[in-house]
Amino acid sequence: MKIDLTDAAKRLTAFDNVLILTHLHPDGDTLGSAFALCRGLRALHKRAKVVCSDAIPEKYAYMWRDLAEYQEFSPDRIVAVDVASPQLLGTLHQYEGRIDLCVDHHPSNTLYAAETAVDPTAAATAEMIYQILLDMDVPLDEKIADCIFTGLSTDTGCFRYSNVTPHTMRIAADMMELGARAGEINRVMFETKTRTYIELEKLAMASLEFYYGGICALMSVTKEMFEKSGSNEMECEGLASIPRQVEGVQVGITIREKSDGTFKASVRTAESVNACTLCQMEEGGGHARAAGCTLQGPLSHAKEKIIQDVGILLEQNTKNLK
Amino acid sequence: MKIDLTDAAKRLTAFDNVLILTHLHPDGDTLGSAFALCRGLRALHKRAKVVCSDAIPEKYAYMWRDLAEYQEFSPDRIVAVDVASPQLLGTLHQYEGRIDLCVDHHPSNTLYAAETAVDPTAAATAEMIYQILLDMDVPLDEKIADCIFTGLSTDTGCFRYSNVTPHTMRIAADMMELGARAGEINRVMFETKTRTYIELEKLAMASLEFYYGGICALMSVTKEMFEKSGSNEMECEGLASIPRQVEGVQVGITIREKSDGTFKASVRTAESVNACTLCQMEEGGGHARAAGCTLQGPLSHAKEKIIQDVGILLEQNTKNLK
Repeated sequence: MKIDLTDAAKRLTAFDNVLILTHLHPDGDTLGSAFALCRGLRALHKRAKVVCSDAIPEKYAYMWRDLAEYQEFSPDRIVAVDVASPQLLGTLHQYEGRIDLCVDHHPSNTLYAAETAVDPTAAATAEMIYQILLDMDVPLDEKIADCIFTGLSTDTGCFRYSNVTPHTMRIAADMMELGARAGEINRVMFETKTRTYIELEKLAMASLEFYYGGICALMSVTKEMFEKSGSNEMECEGLASIPRQVEGVQVGITIREKSDGTFKASVRTAESVNACTLCQMEEGGGHARAAGCTLQGPLSHAKEKIIQDVGILLEQNTKNLK
Repeated sequence: MKIDLTDAAKRLTAFDNVLILTHLHPDGDTLGSAFALCRGLRALHKRAKVVCSDAIPEKYAYMWRDLAEYQEFSPDRIVAVDVASPQLLGTLHQYEGRIDLCVDHHPSNTLYAAETAVDPTAAATAEMIYQILLDMDVPLDEKIADCIFTGLSTDTGCFRYSNVTPHTMRIAADMMELGARAGEINRVMFETKTRTYIELEKLAMASLEFYYGGICALMSVTKEMFEKSGSNEMECEGLASIPRQVEGVQVGITIREKSDGTFKASVRTAESVNACTLCQMEEGGGHARAAGCTLQGPLSHAKEKIIQDVGILLEQNTKNLK
């Protein structure tokens, strides 16, 4: 059932021992939302704990490092944040079917939780969590501000994408006034590249191919490139935006080889093409301008498949225009 | 003489025929500030016109394309925006000594105008122009909003750098509500790379060198690279931020060969090093985290000179810490 943020805040106010689930390959928004909520609940003298399928990258450590680890406690409520579908729980799939509340901004949310607050107009789930914390009268501090700011900043390419609203900018301003270390967080998230990442980026750039008269660009990231550069998949986040940045490109695709031989496709599009629709053709999902899906290997097959899908979508778009 | 923004607004309210000067190699802030002011003055039924030493890159055309060209008029007042020193006027140097008012956020402003409103805490000169337009009771529209937004966004690396304040974010929100096409402007400024630029970036990346144990990184952009890539100096803006982004680098330098054989150095630094101090050693200037200067060629000499300067500065910093 769908509920609004006011009701979500009421539910959370009534909860006492809360387990907070994040999505796999965690990003700044799922983590920022989760740790802001965790800190908010603890400030109201509740027990709360964040879990994730994958290891949390070191660069996000400032969000949780000072949080005391609770002894084992039996959560009586389970809340998922920024998790659009049960598949994204990864190894936390044992909680599927037992999730009381989901707070999420993905339009593709499958409403798998008992109650879901979903707002696709929010640039980040962190925007929604901020409103919930206000509704719950949580005393906000600079640590919560860091978490909320991280969610806003990372899900908007540092306030760059068209999902940003005046509301997003004003919340960011509020967070900065509360003490969020905005410049420092942005530097870590957007301005810091390891030398191994730079080597990887060079190799990936060399793989850039263009299709459909330059409307579509595809970049490949293979296990061989990881070995050659000394980089790894934890460093790949920044690559996804590159193909779309080439002048004239409306569909930018990055496909990354995973350890099991499948390929993770990250799709970024201009207004004319719906990235989510494209990825849904391969049982993936996401947002209109940024989405993802999984493709079977080998590389040549994965490329062929997604490029074919792009062709079908472009043809449909042309027909719709007629 | 230094004056505040209220006084600057009063002066401008009294002016009737205004020539607005921008700095050479114009960027989004000098142009956004100039065209916002020009539009504001015209909205108050004054004559105003913007001039620049160099051609205005096509990507900024949305700021001026719809502006009717006035017949020749004799400006009785000259105003410079975002111009820190007379040297930055380029071919407009004939106006030196005749400038009535300067509005600028550079701490290195040499106070060359009769009256100067300077605020180094402003992330962009456009922030100051916005306040001036409000003080002048200019009816703001979406065109002015586009100009102000462009200044804010381009001078902060799209709200990424540590110069951004809550005030910057709130003005950006106001501009978006006024109708600024934020997503589109950001895409053009930050998300669009020509294929020739991509080729140039690859060549420049290959030139990346590290000094002082990785604290300093230097990237070279030569005429040969322009020829090989088909790119040109108009496309170089994005390169300056790259060296500083490498993990561990505190001083990132990009030196670009100019047609006269000299080199333009763009310096970006972390908190520990003052970019402006470094560039002042070569008679340049700018901000604490971003500054520039000119070096004599050939390439080997230019590199040696600036790397030597960095060494002197790092040594001074170490002494100061003792």
